[in-house]
Amino acid sequence: MEQIGPSTALLTDHYELTMLGSALADGSADRECVFEVFARRLPGGRRYGVVAGTGRVLDAIADFRFTDAELTQLEETAVVDSATLSWLADYRFSGDVDGYPEGELYFPGSPLLTVRGSFAEAVVLETLILSILNHDSAIASAAARMSAAASGRPIIEMGGRRTHELAAVAAARAAYLAGFATTSNLEAGRRYGIPTRGTTAHAYILLHDSEEAAFRSQVAKAGPDTTLLVDTYDITTGIDTAVRVAGPELGAIRIDSGDVGVLARKAREQLDDLGAKDTRIMVSGDLDEHAIAALRAEPVDAYGVGTSVVTGSGAPTAGMVYKLVDVDGRPVAKRSEDKASRGGRKSAVRRHKATGTALEEVVHPADTPPELGEHDRVVPIPLMRAGKPAGGLPTLEDARTRLRRGMVSLPWEGLKLSGGEPAIPTTFI
Amino acid sequence: MEQIGPSTALLTDHYELTMLGSALADGSADRECVFEVFARRLPGGRRYGVVAGTGRVLDAIADFRFTDAELTQLEETAVVDSATLSWLADYRFSGDVDGYPEGELYFPGSPLLTVRGSFAEAVVLETLILSILNHDSAIASAAARMSAAASGRPIIEMGGRRTHELAAVAAARAAYLAGFATTSNLEAGRRYGIPTRGTTAHAYILLHDSEEAAFRSQVAKAGPDTTLLVDTYDITTGIDTAVRVAGPELGAIRIDSGDVGVLARKAREQLDDLGAKDTRIMVSGDLDEHAIAALRAEPVDAYGVGTSVVTGSGAPTAGMVYKLVDVDGRPVAKRSEDKASRGGRKSAVRRHKATGTALEEVVHPADTPPELGEHDRVVPIPLMRAGKPAGGLPTLEDARTRLRRGMVSLPWEGLKLSGGEPAIPTTFI
Repeated sequence: MEQIGPSTALLTDHYELTMLGSALADGSADRECVFEVFARRLPGGRRYGVVAGTGRVLDAIADFRFTDAELTQLEETAVVDSATLSWLADYRFSGDVDGYPEGELYFPGSPLLTVRGSFAEAVVLETLILSILNHDSAIASAAARMSAAASGRPIIEMGGRRTHELAAVAAARAAYLAGFATTSNLEAGRRYGIPTRGTTAHAYILLHDSEEAAFRSQVAKAGPDTTLLVDTYDITTGIDTAVRVAGPELGAIRIDSGDVGVLARKAREQLDDLGAKDTRIMVSGDLDEHAIAALRAEPVDAYGVGTSVVTGSGAPTAGMVYKLVDVDGRPVAKRSEDKASRGGRKSAVRRHKATGTALEEVVHPADTPPELGEHDRVVPIPLMRAGKPAGGLPTLEDARTRLRRGMVSLPWEGLKLSGGEPAIPTTFI
Repeated sequence: MEQIGPSTALLTDHYELTMLGSALADGSADRECVFEVFARRLPGGRRYGVVAGTGRVLDAIADFRFTDAELTQLEETAVVDSATLSWLADYRFSGDVDGYPEGELYFPGSPLLTVRGSFAEAVVLETLILSILNHDSAIASAAARMSAAASGRPIIEMGGRRTHELAAVAAARAAYLAGFATTSNLEAGRRYGIPTRGTTAHAYILLHDSEEAAFRSQVAKAGPDTTLLVDTYDITTGIDTAVRVAGPELGAIRIDSGDVGVLARKAREQLDDLGAKDTRIMVSGDLDEHAIAALRAEPVDAYGVGTSVVTGSGAPTAGMVYKLVDVDGRPVAKRSEDKASRGGRKSAVRRHKATGTALEEVVHPADTPPELGEHDRVVPIPLMRAGKPAGGLPTLEDARTRLRRGMVSLPWEGLKLSGGEPAIPTTFI
């Protein structure tokens, strides 16, 4: 189990507990409820979203416990009454959860997570579940676009410094899930086994008496198969010095500033002229999916991406909501302007052509599934049963594989970076 | 001390430790260095930034320790050699830190944090310091614009579900620092003593057999001085029912959807007609600083703000960098295109008119301060000395006060929400 902390129970909105208190008092707390996580739309005309965070959600639910520390805080601040405190002291989620596995594509209205249990036990999980899914899916959705734009060239995630220190760890996980090769974040390496990479920053060059001295020191320590950062002063001089110091077996150079496309082309020529034909070129510095796509024709071997991936490249949250859709078997829905919801517990089937290309997301009442064609499949999987993790849950590597396959299944317009309609329509039956 | 975790040491980029390893090997690790945190620009034509996170940085530095768990991970993944592991095992930051106190306004080039120590002990803090400052300052900078737009009407921060579950806690802190009245986040209440608030969501209404039954239950539990959510079905009916159930002493209604300005006006009339003249109107639902400003003329008593504040309202990161500016008393600077830096340890003075209006941010070499006029002041304060927190560090409440005063000191154009030049120019001497 991932250790988010001793307890995740206070990563919760105040109103979840006041609702709980009132519902316990009036007896409605025991009603059997279904809550559904979905996104009304994809941000910024994106063509698809990528589910991420589900694995973290399951761990966080397991850690959702009100110990003395949490109960004392709630008592001292009078958030709830003593009857509610007693109920919370015994809290263990005992319900069922189904949902889209990590790495699955999603579309507007896809039933991403379905939580079944008493109102009391399910309502208190709203904030925690949404926080994790909204963050991680936003990052994975942006990262998948970058991975697609990179067309197989590796990307290292190096944005930890641009986001909250622990969001950084989750962001590294989501980016890796979405096809990034490695991360700079050491804690993501520890928690999730993601390969970490890194060599030197400009500070290392500036620390030394000269660029050459810095390169010599780095090569002495790491060997010639390292990455030398060549843009601290003058790039052409930097490359000359790098090859002189490391020899033509130099592993890679990194360029972190300027018009990296032009600079990569010039650097490639220079490296080739110096006999360093196998020395790779890594570029970084404010890259997003559009910049990566624009570099397709350039002699770039690897990308370093920071700010844009950890901030969701313009869409830092996935905008998912957690809505009550069923009470004691009765569908419920609000009718608020612009925010109407669809009642009833749902599931989803993705229809495909015989070629494997996705055609349609069919969202249907859970109890009346449509007929499954030969190339169709049910999207949600069981995640928890009676409060315990379901068997055979997919791993992070499974999620990477699932997403790779999902991307291949998209119609070609669905891979466009420009804004437009979702790659496939959602049909509600 | 805030407990971020047992150790913050791996919230670090891989390359910090490989640089450390090389520098220990070549002897440069002991050179006396100065690193400086600054922002090259303000995002999106903002007129000012707000420093937040410094308090969390000091706690995180105190928790930056390589215990067996961290060392084992680094050893198993071969990030560093055994000499470096030994050095890390004894790591304690022993240097000095100066910086802008939390709640201080900042401008492009302001020296926000200055870390002095050996290269080795200062370089490894880069990622952690930037993560915290970039996140928290982004939130505070957005929140300050919202607070200014709200002109004294209270705002509750309720965006926890739209961001990483622990970023949510820091975001609540930064929003409170920037003038928000309360938060929905219970963990922010526990960690930072921020007042938390909340009543009910739409799920609570839907859980019950009717809106009236839900209102009756809530009022029975919380008394009439509560906030009833009136937009689940029809708002006019909802308000009628709310006042019928709670009486004219109803505390507040909340409207979370639709054109809240128009709806607030109609609701005010309706409440007044029903004799509920003191019942307040709270609005929420996709509000940002522009929406809040547009509601100035409407009868709104309080705002609930979620997504926009926790995502920095279009600028989710402050873009601050941590640059080596001095080595053994020698100023150093890189010359990279678009990313050139200014060498040397710096401090800053803010000049003001006799009226108290800010005129100019003067950034100067730390050892040669300019003459202080009667209305000028030195901006940075001592934060750490020889690895220990400096005495008399400002509290979160101090930061709120400081920012309120800072906002008053801005020239009036500096409070504009539209994009433009920084409120005051930065002069480098």
